[in-house]
Amino acid sequence: MRAEIFDSTLRDGSQAEGISFSIRDKLNIVKALDSFGVDYIEAGNPASNPKEQLFFEQLRELTLRKARVCAFGSTVRYGTTPEEDSGLAALVAAGTATVAVFGKAWDLHVTEILRITPGNNLEIVASTIRYLKSLGKELIFDAEHFFDGYRGNRDYALSVLRTAADAGADCLCLCDTNGGMLPLEIAEIVRDVCRNFPDTRIGIHCHDDTGCAVANTVTAVMSGVCHIQGTFNGFGERCGNANLSAIIPDLALKCGVDCDVDLRMLKATARSIAEISNIHLPKNAPYVGKSAFSHKGGMHIDGVQKLSRSFEHIDPETVGNERRFLLSEVSGRGTVLPKIRKYAPELTKHSEKTAWITEKLKERELHGYQYEAAEASFELFVKKALGLWSSHFNMVMYKVTDDFPAPDGEQQSNAIVKIEVGGRTQMSCDSGNGPVNALDKALRNALTVFYPQLATMHLIDYKVRVIDSKSTDAVTRVLIESSDGTTSYTTVGVSSDIIEASVTALVDSYEYVLSGK
Amino acid sequence: MRAEIFDSTLRDGSQAEGISFSIRDKLNIVKALDSFGVDYIEAGNPASNPKEQLFFEQLRELTLRKARVCAFGSTVRYGTTPEEDSGLAALVAAGTATVAVFGKAWDLHVTEILRITPGNNLEIVASTIRYLKSLGKELIFDAEHFFDGYRGNRDYALSVLRTAADAGADCLCLCDTNGGMLPLEIAEIVRDVCRNFPDTRIGIHCHDDTGCAVANTVTAVMSGVCHIQGTFNGFGERCGNANLSAIIPDLALKCGVDCDVDLRMLKATARSIAEISNIHLPKNAPYVGKSAFSHKGGMHIDGVQKLSRSFEHIDPETVGNERRFLLSEVSGRGTVLPKIRKYAPELTKHSEKTAWITEKLKERELHGYQYEAAEASFELFVKKALGLWSSHFNMVMYKVTDDFPAPDGEQQSNAIVKIEVGGRTQMSCDSGNGPVNALDKALRNALTVFYPQLATMHLIDYKVRVIDSKSTDAVTRVLIESSDGTTSYTTVGVSSDIIEASVTALVDSYEYVLSGK
Repeated sequence: MRAEIFDSTLRDGSQAEGISFSIRDKLNIVKALDSFGVDYIEAGNPASNPKEQLFFEQLRELTLRKARVCAFGSTVRYGTTPEEDSGLAALVAAGTATVAVFGKAWDLHVTEILRITPGNNLEIVASTIRYLKSLGKELIFDAEHFFDGYRGNRDYALSVLRTAADAGADCLCLCDTNGGMLPLEIAEIVRDVCRNFPDTRIGIHCHDDTGCAVANTVTAVMSGVCHIQGTFNGFGERCGNANLSAIIPDLALKCGVDCDVDLRMLKATARSIAEISNIHLPKNAPYVGKSAFSHKGGMHIDGVQKLSRSFEHIDPETVGNERRFLLSEVSGRGTVLPKIRKYAPELTKHSEKTAWITEKLKERELHGYQYEAAEASFELFVKKALGLWSSHFNMVMYKVTDDFPAPDGEQQSNAIVKIEVGGRTQMSCDSGNGPVNALDKALRNALTVFYPQLATMHLIDYKVRVIDSKSTDAVTRVLIESSDGTTSYTTVGVSSDIIEASVTALVDSYEYVLSGK
Repeated sequence: MRAEIFDSTLRDGSQAEGISFSIRDKLNIVKALDSFGVDYIEAGNPASNPKEQLFFEQLRELTLRKARVCAFGSTVRYGTTPEEDSGLAALVAAGTATVAVFGKAWDLHVTEILRITPGNNLEIVASTIRYLKSLGKELIFDAEHFFDGYRGNRDYALSVLRTAADAGADCLCLCDTNGGMLPLEIAEIVRDVCRNFPDTRIGIHCHDDTGCAVANTVTAVMSGVCHIQGTFNGFGERCGNANLSAIIPDLALKCGVDCDVDLRMLKATARSIAEISNIHLPKNAPYVGKSAFSHKGGMHIDGVQKLSRSFEHIDPETVGNERRFLLSEVSGRGTVLPKIRKYAPELTKHSEKTAWITEKLKERELHGYQYEAAEASFELFVKKALGLWSSHFNMVMYKVTDDFPAPDGEQQSNAIVKIEVGGRTQMSCDSGNGPVNALDKALRNALTVFYPQLATMHLIDYKVRVIDSKSTDAVTRVLIESSDGTTSYTTVGVSSDIIEASVTALVDSYEYVLSGK
C-alpha cells in the first residue's frame, strides 16, 4: 500500500507559537522536504499577506526533484462569485498546479460562525471547487472540523464531502481541526467515509490536543485513508499538528505502508527543519530525538549489547539515528566513520584515528557544539584532526565596543581586529550596525590584505541559541551562514560570550573558504 | 467506570536523560501527586542504591491523603530462594504495603538475556509472588515486554500471566517495554488477555517510541484495562513513558472514565513536577502547556470569540489552564481588543484608540517586533499607548566592550551604564561572561540604588532571532525571559544591533517589575 505525504510545516506549522519564517527559511525548508521525498508541500496561504505572494514568486524559480507545491485557501465568501473573490484570485496567482481549499463540514460552524444556511455552505463549496477545477488545478478539499461535524450531524458532514466530490475534488481530507479525537472513534468514522466514497482519495489531518495526533493518523491510514497531512516535528497551533517524523516511520516500518521517502534522512530532515525554525527539537522525540535510542539503565544496556532488538523497537540506523549508552564509554564510531572517510578513505572503524576523532567530537558536543547544521565547521574539524588542514591566519586580538548614544552620531558598534599571517601582523578596524557586523567587517578588512578573494564574502544568516538556559551563565551557540557570492555554508561557535561564539563561527567561515571548501 | 492511576514518575520517569532527583525533590513530587489524587505512587527501586532506601525511610514518616506508595523490584535470580535474594530483601525492607515486581514475558528475553529455560522463568515468577503475598503485600505484576512476547509466542506470554495470577498477583500489568506498539494491535491483544483473565485487574504500561503511548494507553482502557501506569509529563527513558497529564483528561473528559483526581489541578501539578525535575514543560503539551489553548490565526480567534467550542475541544478551565490570543502578522482589531480591554474595559472594536493601537502595533510588527512570546512588553506597550504608564528610569548612556584576550585575564566583557531617575543620575559598571550579562549586571547595580527590590531579579532565558536575513544589515529580535524569584515573564527588543535589542528587552523587564506587573 502506498500513502502520499502532504507536509504543512510552512502553512499550518507556521501557526505555532514562536515560529515566524523568513522567505529564506521557507525556501530552505522546501529544499529539505523535497530531498527527503514528501509528495506535497503546502507552502502557505497567498491571500494572508504580501510576503506570502513574494515567496510563491521565488518558489516558482526553484526546481524540485519530486514534491508538488500546493497553495492553501478558503471557499469563497457567500454572495461573491469565484471570479470576483479576492482570496481565490490570490490563490490562483500563486501559480501552483495543486491547491488545497478548506470548507466547513460542521453545521454548527456554518450557522454560528459563517452565519449562513447549511445549503448556502454547500453552494460555496461547489462553486469554489468547480471554478478551480475549470482552471485545471489538482484540488484537495480540507473538510474543516469534519469529525466534530460528523458527531453532531453525520448526514450534513457527509453531504459536504459529497458536494466536494461531485464538484470534482481530487482528494477529500478529513480534518480534526480542534484536535479532540481519540483513535477508536477515528477508525470507525474513517471506515464509514471510505465505504461511502470508495472511488475518491481520502485524507487525514489531525491536531495533537489529546496527545493522540500520531496515533489518530496511523489509525486512519489503517482504516482506509491514503493521503496524510502533518508537519515536521509536529509544529503547529496550540499542541501542534500530527508529527510526520513519527507517522512516516510508524507506517513504513510497522504497517507495511510505502511512503516513498528516504527514511535514512528522517533524523537529518527533522533536525534541519527544527534548526531553520529556531525551535529546539525535543530530546525525547520519537525516532529522531537525541534520546530516542539512548539507554540509561544498566540492565537495558546489557540487554541491548547482547541482542539489540531485545530493548529496541527498531534499528536506529533505519531512520538515520544512533544508539547511545548514557553510562558507558561505548562510542558512536559507526556514525562518524562515513563522514571521516570522505577525507581519509583508508580509515576503518578500528583505526586509532577514528577512535580519537570520535572522542574529540564527543568532548565538543559536551561543550555545546552541534555539527548537524554546520557542515563547514565539521569539515574543518575533521580535516584538522586528520592533519589535512592548518589555519590560514591567527586571531591575535579583537576589541569591540557598543556605545549608546552612538559616538559618531551614527554607528553604535566599533571593532578593532589584529591578525597574524606567516609572521606578519595586520590591524584593521571598522564600524557596524551591531558588534558582529563591525567585527565581521574589521576582520575582512584585515584578511583581504593577504587574501583579496575574500572581498566577495558576506554573512547571510545569523542564529543564536542558548543551550543551557538555567542562568546568565548559559552557553550560547551561534550559527552563521555565509556566502562567497555563489554558494553558502554554515559554521558554528560556542561560548558563554555571544561575541566570542560569533568570532569563532566567523573565523571558521573565512577559513572554510580559504581551504578551498 | 473507574480506572486507577499508577504514577511512575519517580521510578521509570527518573530514567529520563537529564533527570536526577534528590530525596527532597522526590518528597515534593510525592506530595504533589497525592494532592492531585493519584491512586499509586511508584516511589523507586530500593535495591538500586542506598539513597533509595533512605528515601523510603523518610517516606514512611509522610502522611498521605490518598495515594498508596509502591516499591519496585524484580523476580528473584534463578537458583536463589526468595528468602535469600538480596533484591527482594531490599524490596521488603522498603516497608510499603504495595509492591510492583517485574518478570519476563517474552521467551526471547528468557533464553537470550536471562539465559534460562522458559520453565525456569515460570518458577521464579511463581516463587517471587508467592513469597511476597505470604508477607501480606498487595502485588502488581509487571509483565515486561508483554506485547513483543505475545507477538512472538502468545501461549508462553499468557502462561507467564497465568503463573503470576495463580501465585496470587493482584494486578497483571501488560508492558510495552520497547514502546513499539500501535493502538489497533494493542486493542486486539488487550481484549484477548481480558477474555482470558476475567477476574483479575489488568494494567497497561506504555512507552512513547512510536509517538503513540497516550493513545495506546487510552485504547487499552477502552478495551478492558483498569490499571494505568504512566509518568507526569511523559518523563522516562528514550522517548519517555505514557504521559499521565494527557491520559487522565482524555479518559475523564472524553471516555467517561472516572480517575478520581482533582482535574482542575492538572496543569498546576504537571507544572510543579516539571519545575521540581528542572525540565522545561513544552509549550505545546496537550491540556497543560502554555500554548494548549492559544489561538494565533485571525479566523480562529474570531471563531473562539463567537463560540468557544467552535475552536476548542474542551473548556481550558476544566484542567486549570487558560485561553490566550497570540499576536501575529495576521492580527487585526479582533485579536488586539480583548487584550486592550484588560486595561481599558470601556474600549470597543470601533473606538479610535483601538484603531490607533492596532495601527501602532502593525507598525512595530513591520519593524520586527513580535509580541506573541513577549506578553510583558506587550502590556507595557498597551499601557503606554493608553497613557496608563510612564517609565521609571531613563537610559542616559551605556558602553559595553568585549576584548580578546580578556583585559583582566578572566572576563572579556565589561559594561558601564548611566541612568536617570527623577533628575538624579547614577553610573554603575560590572563585568560578565558576555556583553549582555555585563550590561544586565551593570544596569541592575544602578537601578537597585533607587529600587532595592530589583536585587532578586535575574535573566533566565535569552533568545535571538535574525528576522530579515538578507544581509548583515539584518534586524535582530531578542527575547529575554526574566524572573523576580517567584514568577517569570518575557520581554522583547528589536534592533540591527544585538546589544541595543538586548538593552531594550532588559529595560522592559525591569520596567515591567517596577510597574507592579
